[in-house]
Amino acid sequence: MHILIIGAAGMVGRKLTGKLVADGELGGKPISALTLVDVVAPAAPAGFKGTIVTSAEDLSTPGVAASTLAGRPDVIFHLAAIVSGEAEADFDKGYRINLDGTRYLFEAIRQAGLENPYFPRVVFTSSIAVFGAPFPDAIGDEFFTTPLTSYGTQKAIGELLLSDYSRKGFFDGIAIRLPTICIRPGAPNKAASGFFSNILREPLVGKEAVLPVSEDVRHWHASPRAAVGFLIHSATMDLSLLGWRRAVSLPGLSATVGEQIEALRKVAGDKTVALIRREPDPTIIKIVAGWARNFDTKRAKDLGFVAESSFEEIIRVHVEDELGGKIGG
Amino acid sequence: MHILIIGAAGMVGRKLTGKLVADGELGGKPISALTLVDVVAPAAPAGFKGTIVTSAEDLSTPGVAASTLAGRPDVIFHLAAIVSGEAEADFDKGYRINLDGTRYLFEAIRQAGLENPYFPRVVFTSSIAVFGAPFPDAIGDEFFTTPLTSYGTQKAIGELLLSDYSRKGFFDGIAIRLPTICIRPGAPNKAASGFFSNILREPLVGKEAVLPVSEDVRHWHASPRAAVGFLIHSATMDLSLLGWRRAVSLPGLSATVGEQIEALRKVAGDKTVALIRREPDPTIIKIVAGWARNFDTKRAKDLGFVAESSFEEIIRVHVEDELGGKIGG
Repeated sequence: MHILIIGAAGMVGRKLTGKLVADGELGGKPISALTLVDVVAPAAPAGFKGTIVTSAEDLSTPGVAASTLAGRPDVIFHLAAIVSGEAEADFDKGYRINLDGTRYLFEAIRQAGLENPYFPRVVFTSSIAVFGAPFPDAIGDEFFTTPLTSYGTQKAIGELLLSDYSRKGFFDGIAIRLPTICIRPGAPNKAASGFFSNILREPLVGKEAVLPVSEDVRHWHASPRAAVGFLIHSATMDLSLLGWRRAVSLPGLSATVGEQIEALRKVAGDKTVALIRREPDPTIIKIVAGWARNFDTKRAKDLGFVAESSFEEIIRVHVEDELGGKIGG
Repeated sequence: MHILIIGAAGMVGRKLTGKLVADGELGGKPISALTLVDVVAPAAPAGFKGTIVTSAEDLSTPGVAASTLAGRPDVIFHLAAIVSGEAEADFDKGYRINLDGTRYLFEAIRQAGLENPYFPRVVFTSSIAVFGAPFPDAIGDEFFTTPLTSYGTQKAIGELLLSDYSRKGFFDGIAIRLPTICIRPGAPNKAASGFFSNILREPLVGKEAVLPVSEDVRHWHASPRAAVGFLIHSATMDLSLLGWRRAVSLPGLSATVGEQIEALRKVAGDKTVALIRREPDPTIIKIVAGWARNFDTKRAKDLGFVAESSFEEIIRVHVEDELGGKIGG
């Protein structure tokens, strides 16, 4: 089996690569080849026994998608995107990377199939940003997509294209709306959602973190480990169960910032929690007010997608996967 | 006021042009210029006192949209599309005309505004084809768009783009999901939906018509006169009432084929109804089974959109507007 990961240098892409290399198989079939693509060349993982190709490619350049598909991968993970803040600040770049790049990929798969029969599995990471306030208490599986960002618009369009290309038989696709990934490893970043991870990750290693919103802010979370599980399940499940409604909101944990902090207290104690500094930021407060808070993901659960059920679990996953089981600075 | 109609040679475009010329004004402002564009040059209407330009243009050709906007129209009606059946049969053409053409137009407006402040009203005709079965009994204002045709996909993408371009302040847009237009004037056509009009229009002039489905088939209708009213209202209402949810399902009349036939009997008698010949067509039966049957359009009604409330009214509109008040062969 040959697997292509587009956006392989990102956090989720690296974790997915690591999992595939560790497993050596996907859905019971041995992985013989991995192609890892991103705008910067992804690192080749150690310990993989098959063929590995890594390359720096920009899918929004016409013609690139076709050459990326030259090896006719059986499974394509399309994780590449510029993030919400950048797509909002640079309108042209957002549409070029997130819309044109995705469309070029889908179209290149179709063209490859017109030359010679080809029917790969395509897993596309969409986002809960396809939804825009006002929301019901819990967003159900049939709620409409009215994004309030260009990023969310581009993801919603990607979902529509993926469903149509799947319906027409050009590939077997699924678009998964990932919850916000928490705890996101690495250094604090300036993303408006960054604090959801910062207020846990930094105190866990004895560092201060800033909380820019009030404790009653509610949001929708899943761990990086859960995200990798979503991708693997998407690549191996029977997609005919979806019919032509190929976009799915995935399970997550709806929690307030206050609940996050209490979970941190249980796992790591009062001294760790004391490292969170309240510093309200009106800009972030306003942005976050427009975000989805809770979902009813019956459909995805029935399809076998699984996420964490408590924030203590999310924190423990981070301690295990990122800190070698060790808490404290 | 300068008005641009793209798709002006089509049935709705011609009726809209006729109404604007007859009124001489839009929203209380005199119409000084009309630009009529289609892939075939629209006929110049008689009796218009302002400047009129008609031209044959294909908006899906890069660069064409910019030149079409050279006169900086205040209101742009974008009605141009290839129909559902053709978009399904010719995948490339459907995406080129219905998606690329629409995106080029929106982008040309944005580019014009980057050069010099420009903020036109844009009225885009979407379709109930953005919805795909299975449906609730009545499709509400927050139901998700999961099209089962490439045409519906292209319209749903147009809606998303229009909302995002409006949110970013590039123009003031509204996407209206028209019901199936009934009674469609002109000769019978091969469109799968054609029979909804054929079984009324043909008998009203003493001709036979074929009914390919059973009488319990339910569908969603509005007259050509109502469609023109929707367009005028969209061009003149306060769109800030929509927030950034710029796509609206419009009011219509949910009726079974049996109810259509009973209305025809009331307006034109048994002899006219006897001209309908039952000839079940499995292909059409299957296509129609996937179509929306009924809507709850509270939002559009609250916004002032008005459609017919009985099929007798729809038939009488046709008799008045197309037959000079006269029934019979």
